[in-house]
Amino acid sequence: MFEVIAFDADDTLWHNESIFTMTQIKFSEMLSSHGQEVVDQTLFATQIKNLQHFGYGIKGFILSMIETAIELTDGEVRGHEIQQILDFGREMLAAPIELLPHVREVVEELSQKYSLLLITKGDLIDQETKIARSGLAEFFDAVEIVSDKTTEVYSKILKRHKIKPSHFMMIGNSMRSDIVPIVQIGAQAVHVPYLSTWEHEQDHPPVDAEHYTELKHLGLLPQLIKKKG
Amino acid sequence: MFEVIAFDADDTLWHNESIFTMTQIKFSEMLSSHGQEVVDQTLFATQIKNLQHFGYGIKGFILSMIETAIELTDGEVRGHEIQQILDFGREMLAAPIELLPHVREVVEELSQKYSLLLITKGDLIDQETKIARSGLAEFFDAVEIVSDKTTEVYSKILKRHKIKPSHFMMIGNSMRSDIVPIVQIGAQAVHVPYLSTWEHEQDHPPVDAEHYTELKHLGLLPQLIKKKG
Repeated sequence: MFEVIAFDADDTLWHNESIFTMTQIKFSEMLSSHGQEVVDQTLFATQIKNLQHFGYGIKGFILSMIETAIELTDGEVRGHEIQQILDFGREMLAAPIELLPHVREVVEELSQKYSLLLITKGDLIDQETKIARSGLAEFFDAVEIVSDKTTEVYSKILKRHKIKPSHFMMIGNSMRSDIVPIVQIGAQAVHVPYLSTWEHEQDHPPVDAEHYTELKHLGLLPQLIKKKG
Repeated sequence: MFEVIAFDADDTLWHNESIFTMTQIKFSEMLSSHGQEVVDQTLFATQIKNLQHFGYGIKGFILSMIETAIELTDGEVRGHEIQQILDFGREMLAAPIELLPHVREVVEELSQKYSLLLITKGDLIDQETKIARSGLAEFFDAVEIVSDKTTEVYSKILKRHKIKPSHFMMIGNSMRSDIVPIVQIGAQAVHVPYLSTWEHEQDHPPVDAEHYTELKHLGLLPQLIKKKG
């Protein structure tokens, strides 16, 4: 019997990766003389290099775009163009929160019967403002903003909330962050793929398909929970 | 009788503001043709403007320095110089954690008798890596990284940990963040001033000196707790 149901936020409850993708397209256009593929590859390499220092989030992404522009232009890029990158960042921060289909009804329905957690990685202030603007904050009993989603991090959260893994279900779009570590600690995982996933999140250890469930959209979740019990 | 003693981290347990100050000096030198006072004032105004979007932390500071350089040069600043600012940021992130005097002994001593919390604001990943590198993590029962330190935030933390305000003491260097909200919720506050405080943190509502204690350094804390406790 499940007691606690936890949700990832970005690309599980609301669109997020699409905002990064759209920004990256504008950034590639700005540097189009270097070739889109080169721009994309350099940006990805810079992001991965910076991940341990900057973490996940918009500020780190802006800094990685700036660094990429400097590298590709051999330091010749001008302040005007860097300003454009800063403006891309500001637009990202101000982007409206668009909930994914079925999210509001499902979260509201489940909150009446279960204790709901929101477990998200990223920048503290980015995530707090998104949760506040999503209109979903009232349905969650607790929000955990973490710098990475590893088995240790999940185990600590379960321990702090006194939840047994067998009573815990996690729903998310990322195999690497939301599914694999959850299967590893012996809890239930539900994978709801988003239309696109950042390359870095696609890299994950193998996991047996028997140990998690895949759903096409969140509207199918209440039925699954009823069945699993 | 106190049960839980909470510490601020930056400039209470270890040097932090001094790293920002040193970076700002290098930044002013880089733009010295605009006059140091103008550089400092523009940077401060940019930081305050960006605070609600970027929060506290090194990434936001780097972005504010970049924006300031663009503004002061009317967009003429070159990538080479922006790269220097990014390098300042990287040096800040890699700066060794220097504990303040008496910190290690006092934290270790108190941890044997009390439950210790660490409550810090700033970037999630910055603060996590600093705590890990400080060598003090083992003495704290919990770490709370928050985006701002308001009475609501403190009340939530106390509620979550089931602590009565009358059993709670907070130690920190910032009147605005560590003392005033703690006095407002009816807990005990201990102010240990750091050698310099960021201008923004000096702006706070008035608070009666009777309601908090000021100590010259952390070495005096165990004696105070014994007396109060």
